[in-house]
Amino acid sequence: MPLMTGIQYEESLRKLNLQVYMFGEKVENVVDNPILRPSMNSVKMTYELAHKPEYEDLMTTASQITGKKINRFTNIHKSTEDLVKKVKMQRLLGQQTASCFQRCVGMDAFNAEYSTTYEIDQKHGTEYHKRFKEFMKMVEEKDYTVDGAMTDPKGDRSLQPSKQVDPDLYLRVVERREDGVVVRGAKVHQTGITNSHEVLVMPTQAMKPEDKDYAISFAVPTDTEGIIIIVGRQSCDTRKLEENADMDLGNREFGGMEALVVFDNVFVPNERIFLNGETEFAGMLVERFAGYHRQSYGGCKVGVGDVLIGAAALAAEYNGVEKVSHIKDKLIEMTHLNETLYACGIACSSEGHPTESGNYIIDLLLANVCKQNVTRFPYEIVRLAEDIAGGLMVTAPSELDFKNEEVGHYVEKYLRGIESVSTEARLRILRLIENLSLGTAAVGYRTESMHGAGSPQAQRIMIARQGNIEHKKELAKNIANIEE
Amino acid sequence: MPLMTGIQYEESLRKLNLQVYMFGEKVENVVDNPILRPSMNSVKMTYELAHKPEYEDLMTTASQITGKKINRFTNIHKSTEDLVKKVKMQRLLGQQTASCFQRCVGMDAFNAEYSTTYEIDQKHGTEYHKRFKEFMKMVEEKDYTVDGAMTDPKGDRSLQPSKQVDPDLYLRVVERREDGVVVRGAKVHQTGITNSHEVLVMPTQAMKPEDKDYAISFAVPTDTEGIIIIVGRQSCDTRKLEENADMDLGNREFGGMEALVVFDNVFVPNERIFLNGETEFAGMLVERFAGYHRQSYGGCKVGVGDVLIGAAALAAEYNGVEKVSHIKDKLIEMTHLNETLYACGIACSSEGHPTESGNYIIDLLLANVCKQNVTRFPYEIVRLAEDIAGGLMVTAPSELDFKNEEVGHYVEKYLRGIESVSTEARLRILRLIENLSLGTAAVGYRTESMHGAGSPQAQRIMIARQGNIEHKKELAKNIANIEE
Amino acid sequence: MPLMTGIQYEESLRKLNLQVYMFGEKVENVVDNPILRPSMNSVKMTYELAHKPEYEDLMTTASQITGKKINRFTNIHKSTEDLVKKVKMQRLLGQQTASCFQRCVGMDAFNAEYSTTYEIDQKHGTEYHKRFKEFMKMVEEKDYTVDGAMTDPKGDRSLQPSKQVDPDLYLRVVERREDGVVVRGAKVHQTGITNSHEVLVMPTQAMKPEDKDYAISFAVPTDTEGIIIIVGRQSCDTRKLEENADMDLGNREFGGMEALVVFDNVFVPNERIFLNGETEFAGMLVERFAGYHRQSYGGCKVGVGDVLIGAAALAAEYNGVEKVSHIKDKLIEMTHLNETLYACGIACSSEGHPTESGNYIIDLLLANVCKQNVTRFPYEIVRLAEDIAGGLMVTAPSELDFKNEEVGHYVEKYLRGIESVSTEARLRILRLIENLSLGTAAVGYRTESMHGAGSPQAQRIMIARQGNIEHKKELAKNIANIEE
Amino acid sequence: MPLMTGIQYEESLRKLNLQVYMFGEKVENVVDNPILRPSMNSVKMTYELAHKPEYEDLMTTASQITGKKINRFTNIHKSTEDLVKKVKMQRLLGQQTASCFQRCVGMDAFNAEYSTTYEIDQKHGTEYHKRFKEFMKMVEEKDYTVDGAMTDPKGDRSLQPSKQVDPDLYLRVVERREDGVVVRGAKVHQTGITNSHEVLVMPTQAMKPEDKDYAISFAVPTDTEGIIIIVGRQSCDTRKLEENADMDLGNREFGGMEALVVFDNVFVPNERIFLNGETEFAGMLVERFAGYHRQSYGGCKVGVGDVLIGAAALAAEYNGVEKVSHIKDKLIEMTHLNETLYACGIACSSEGHPTESGNYIIDLLLANVCKQNVTRFPYEIVRLAEDIAGGLMVTAPSELDFKNEEVGHYVEKYLRGIESVSTEARLRILRLIENLSLGTAAVGYRTESMHGAGSPQAQRIMIARQGNIEHKKELAKNIANIEE
Repeated sequence: MPLMTGIQYEESLRKLNLQVYMFGEKVENVVDNPILRPSMNSVKMTYELAHKPEYEDLMTTASQITGKKINRFTNIHKSTEDLVKKVKMQRLLGQQTASCFQRCVGMDAFNAEYSTTYEIDQKHGTEYHKRFKEFMKMVEEKDYTVDGAMTDPKGDRSLQPSKQVDPDLYLRVVERREDGVVVRGAKVHQTGITNSHEVLVMPTQAMKPEDKDYAISFAVPTDTEGIIIIVGRQSCDTRKLEENADMDLGNREFGGMEALVVFDNVFVPNERIFLNGETEFAGMLVERFAGYHRQSYGGCKVGVGDVLIGAAALAAEYNGVEKVSHIKDKLIEMTHLNETLYACGIACSSEGHPTESGNYIIDLLLANVCKQNVTRFPYEIVRLAEDIAGGLMVTAPSELDFKNEEVGHYVEKYLRGIESVSTEARLRILRLIENLSLGTAAVGYRTESMHGAGSPQAQRIMIARQGNIEHKKELAKNIANIEE
Repeated sequence: MPLMTGIQYEESLRKLNLQVYMFGEKVENVVDNPILRPSMNSVKMTYELAHKPEYEDLMTTASQITGKKINRFTNIHKSTEDLVKKVKMQRLLGQQTASCFQRCVGMDAFNAEYSTTYEIDQKHGTEYHKRFKEFMKMVEEKDYTVDGAMTDPKGDRSLQPSKQVDPDLYLRVVERREDGVVVRGAKVHQTGITNSHEVLVMPTQAMKPEDKDYAISFAVPTDTEGIIIIVGRQSCDTRKLEENADMDLGNREFGGMEALVVFDNVFVPNERIFLNGETEFAGMLVERFAGYHRQSYGGCKVGVGDVLIGAAALAAEYNGVEKVSHIKDKLIEMTHLNETLYACGIACSSEGHPTESGNYIIDLLLANVCKQNVTRFPYEIVRLAEDIAGGLMVTAPSELDFKNEEVGHYVEKYLRGIESVSTEARLRILRLIENLSLGTAAVGYRTESMHGAGSPQAQRIMIARQGNIEHKKELAKNIANIEE
Repeated sequence: MPLMTGIQYEESLRKLNLQVYMFGEKVENVVDNPILRPSMNSVKMTYELAHKPEYEDLMTTASQITGKKINRFTNIHKSTEDLVKKVKMQRLLGQQTASCFQRCVGMDAFNAEYSTTYEIDQKHGTEYHKRFKEFMKMVEEKDYTVDGAMTDPKGDRSLQPSKQVDPDLYLRVVERREDGVVVRGAKVHQTGITNSHEVLVMPTQAMKPEDKDYAISFAVPTDTEGIIIIVGRQSCDTRKLEENADMDLGNREFGGMEALVVFDNVFVPNERIFLNGETEFAGMLVERFAGYHRQSYGGCKVGVGDVLIGAAALAAEYNGVEKVSHIKDKLIEMTHLNETLYACGIACSSEGHPTESGNYIIDLLLANVCKQNVTRFPYEIVRLAEDIAGGLMVTAPSELDFKNEEVGHYVEKYLRGIESVSTEARLRILRLIENLSLGTAAVGYRTESMHGAGSPQAQRIMIARQGNIEHKKELAKNIANIEE
Repeated sequence: MPLMTGIQYEESLRKLNLQVYMFGEKVENVVDNPILRPSMNSVKMTYELAHKPEYEDLMTTASQITGKKINRFTNIHKSTEDLVKKVKMQRLLGQQTASCFQRCVGMDAFNAEYSTTYEIDQKHGTEYHKRFKEFMKMVEEKDYTVDGAMTDPKGDRSLQPSKQVDPDLYLRVVERREDGVVVRGAKVHQTGITNSHEVLVMPTQAMKPEDKDYAISFAVPTDTEGIIIIVGRQSCDTRKLEENADMDLGNREFGGMEALVVFDNVFVPNERIFLNGETEFAGMLVERFAGYHRQSYGGCKVGVGDVLIGAAALAAEYNGVEKVSHIKDKLIEMTHLNETLYACGIACSSEGHPTESGNYIIDLLLANVCKQNVTRFPYEIVRLAEDIAGGLMVTAPSELDFKNEEVGHYVEKYLRGIESVSTEARLRILRLIENLSLGTAAVGYRTESMHGAGSPQAQRIMIARQGNIEHKKELAKNIANIEE
């Protein structure tokens, strides 16, 4: 089963025994839960497209480890070409789901772990890399979705892990046994955890020697005892619970999800531990994971942007204004901004280079520049979409009114745009724009563009570090004829 | 009863027999409907504050017509000082409700009608101004909330009213009787209609001679036969229906509402008609109403912005980062942008001037500049608030999870920020930011900032028209010594 | 002689015995020096317009001190109306000169000194206010131009005045006599010093008790012994020296100037000292001066912007593209930005209030917001002007080529735009845009918009201080129902 | 002589008999003219670096035509790797010269001609491609600098070429002979023409059938009879004429130049004609040349940006503020913007593809996106540099004052920043920033970033054309479940 089908994937999830809570209740059937199912559908698409011949080149590749054909989401990048194709695959999936399809975070964690474990072993004579390769072989073989888990709750941000009043606010080792460790803590914002077979945990930041217990990385199945998942609520989440909900969802089929994942004394066996106290490598792992993930946003968010641009163009067309110059100009601006993000995603990939372990890593400066732009441009793209859409996207009556016998005909009559397009089509497009601007998908397209893969300031710190300002000073002195 | 109390206002609404539909059902008790009540509370605040001595100067004034003390929301502006106080009152109400308080649209319509009817009468010998003053006397006396209704559905924007396939896509006179007219059509985006006693209808744009039947302005009670209100749905609207909903609402008390209002053969008696076929004055009415309403946004949105800035500052404080330089800088930027909007609101007011009828009108160029900035800066303020708030505002578990016995303690433990502040307080602030960024209040703070009082392009057309580019060319020729 | 004519002003300057250096030489005839004369012409305009009946209301007023009619540039503001008229006068002069007309800095210093000296006297029983009023009486009476001098060289910005390696890097008292003090130091960026009769010196920042010798304010004639003026060079300054220079200057008549002014042991008599060691008042003086001057930029730069917008509109017209939609849109954007600055200038004025001394001061928050926008929008206005102008503004041959017998006909032929406009007119407009974008006037319109009246960060500090973030936090807590 | 040395290049220019005019006079010695020499030095650098082993990989390559080692500036791109290296070479040269080094325009024209002539021949059976390859062989062999000449004066932009009042406002064939054609017209903004051996002329836009005489492309030596060069003047150009000018130049060594080039009945032999009346190919040639040149700006301007960022960092350091948070943040922002441009340059290169003729062309959408960003970000980078530099960059006394016996010591004393750096070094850095912001280099870094390779609107048209909005609409319909 090197490439699962969508159906197989769905079935594989049913076998998990996840502890999921939502709205104060335990979710018994996670896969069919109407709030969660759209997020499962998004991940499922990563399996389905891998079987379509037209996407084979993007969606699959040969394993770095075994040489077998695998889903690219389980790939250890073998070249800059791989890095570029990763971004193109992500744009494709963004276009097909208009959502976060959640499987990138694992892929990005794989590649960060792969090279970092190699370098730890080189220095410390440990065997993390070997362990990690075993883990990857299994993941490739089973075509698993893995959640990469990084962000700790962090409590008081002005204090380091070991100085917090509650020491669990960063995930840590609370017991060390011969056969493994027991960990306690939590990871917030866990994207796609309910749709994942495994969770790959990493530390959340560079660590100091005294934070040894916090420098821990490992992987365990998502239904391991002690893992409790509390789903985060999203804007407009409960629309999915409305009877026969369709039009009002904007995007009926796809979505994303995030959760607070609690590790309440979870046991991790030795063979699944990939970092354990080598505090000086925590920063490297974070930096590399974040780097790959910042690259990712130059693909997935661009794909979602494509859908939003298309929706805005349709909204204009349905209003009879698609040839008005300011409308055309706004669509151009949206395209320009979206393609600038893509250019950054491509550039940090094509400028990648091999690590000591042999896998390829992006250009870190450009990947951070990419993500920094992602914290800005989707917001402006949304603003322009709202401009083009008109106020109706937030004042149109509900689907139930539209379908109501008494008043539905009024909605039909008065919310019609151009003659050749149905009112329903017009409302559907407006609801899609609402979904991406204010609704469930806005969580992914806006707020997660801001904070996913690190908040804007995190990128700025990296840009400062990678920008080589001393070299630039030398260039300036040279031109200005300053000798000192 | 020149100044109703909040209670009296609420009771007065109960006496109305409105035809309101929502989610495919007729709403029998509008005032207590949980979706609509917060919007009523916002309007109610305009009554309550008028009784507080500390706000008397802002909230009340002497009637231009009778000299009696009235609520400023029913005022015909007597001076630039009145115009400035209007903006300050709006900022105050934005601060107190963090919502659209809906009563401005009537106030702005009053002042546009007041001067325009005067000028029509001067030209045509009609008696619209007299009629309108009678109407105003009643409004002042009863301290009514009046919905100003301008925006027609407009169908295919590339066609003028009389050329639409469905002639009703602009509201029009369908029958002319001796004692009045019968109108048909609809008004979209009607803010506060369910909380209003009367609706004051205006044409939606400048009209050509052939659009005579569309050049109609009048006022009728909101429960007049033939008026059907279909409430627009908002992002996160149904959270208000959740059991014991509180924290997750962000703003439990206040909100705004908008609706599609259908006029299905509504009879209007002559004494309530203020424009009837004088097509050349439709544009003036629109321009003046829009001008006043563009001024308004320099007050109300600034008040909402104040709340959002405060919320972001608290989110930072609760995270322990309020002294970090990039956080401080973002709060400064938010303040700067918000105060720029205020400056525009104040400037167009203090530069106002009397119309022929004697009431005061804002500086039209600056009012349009004001609104144009409102279509931009709140979006950036929201973006910065989301930056400061962190991803938790879209991934935090629901209130029901927080209060749940099994998992509530995990949420309590892991979502704690600094020690001195409760997790609940932190979650409340994040939900407030969510409410203003993505939720029900985002409808008002973002999309309506974009399209309310006219979409951005409408302001640009006015800026071009009012900007006196010919004078600027003369200045340039003078400096460049070009004689021609 | 309460209102000098332009001629009288020019003659009065000839009587000064200034020590001026430029390009390594002493300037013997300052008034007629071709580099400096345009700056004198700009100041002269402040005298000439005061005699034109159509500008009387803006340009003149009644003295706060004597009640006599005076030039508004010597006014102590008596009302918010005065503050508003100040801004309008400045816009007018910006329009007429397309330059910095230099006389504002004195006016703004007067008003800051007026109220601050009053408050010092109240506290310390000194007689600075009386002295200052005497000084003002003289200034009004003689209709003098006074240079306000604030900015010290400051050396190493990380050290306070008394900690600098060279103690003179902040101007200070080096000797105290019975009849006065001797000062040493310098003031940089001194606008209009060669066109001023007097110089009014203020400290450059808030001072600590140990900086007592640096807390000094006084006024002396500009030709006082020990004052040495070294003129700063500007972009394209020497074009003014080219034979028969006209077209290539862009603005042949008007300009601005700035200089390094050295005070090499200058004696100041007691009656001209307005602050002397009361360190705790240095900050107030700086803050008030800066506040008034930040207001000023909401007038003068707007006037210059008007000229630039007009020039861009002409450039488009001369190219035959004035009706192209993106061109029109850019002109609208320029107008919008320029009027936003004006709105800020007006708003901080109309929201002014009286000081303890009775003169009026602007709203400090809005004045700082005004200036902060001035550090941004003129740059964007320039960028748009360059966009509209086309590349020719930086590639067109010189005026000497245009007038040359051999090749002038080629320039005439090939640089013609639309048939109805001469090549010369087209070139003149492009040179004017060059002048404002890159040339001598860009110094005033760009860099001085950035740093004049304080660099951007100075305004941000004031915005933080004046923004009342605690009040905003309370508003947010109130809405979010947080009680603590 | 496949790779000329810098000296050889300089000597080769001396042999040309150019007709150059400047400031109303014929320039007899072009190479040593102080105004023009810095531009020659910039081009010379493209020869010098080709001999440095450390830059060999970037600066040289194997000829597509002969396989011999050639300067990359004469390269016909053989791969996407070639396209990427082109951009890196350009960044390097921008860093080394802080100027426009002028040789790109020829390189970009070569590649556009190469593929276009091939396609014309395929359609029309002409032999333009063969002729062009012969020309290229010569260029490679002699290591020539070639000026690519595209922009016609265009007169009234609202009229097409053949409808202009003066038919010569677009360059055209005025006589057709058996052995060639005679052309008349002019090309404006000709970058580096005085430093070029040949000029390669292309039409300026897509042509209609009736514009046949305007659809002409050819190459001739720059000193061909009838070619008259009239040098454009730049901001601060004459500083280079000042005695012993050094510090005040900011960049003493390097610069750029542009000219109006008149073709007054110039004869072109058949073997040098590459397009002659095939109007339908004019657009392709323009689009491809513009595409390559828009890519170029993602390299050269980034290199100049590096110098400016370095200069700003030094200015901060010399003021003692390099660790202040807002300063650091501004340097990060400058870096971020600069690297975004670079990312676009790299991405459009790595996403290139072969043309029918076999040479490689960039991704046109991304190249246009690249250039569009270049019309914005350098302006913001300059603004931030001016912010950091402080006002002194426009108010500091001249170099002659600094070196003057009487007043030089004042300048030395008072304009000192931190103790460890000389006043001279500080002034040099400020002059460099002035040079790039307002001076001769601002012409290249600002205005030419705006208009070079086509004005912003030209890119927007291409973005609209290449953006595939119909595909995006399909994506949106798919998500919104709209079937039509």
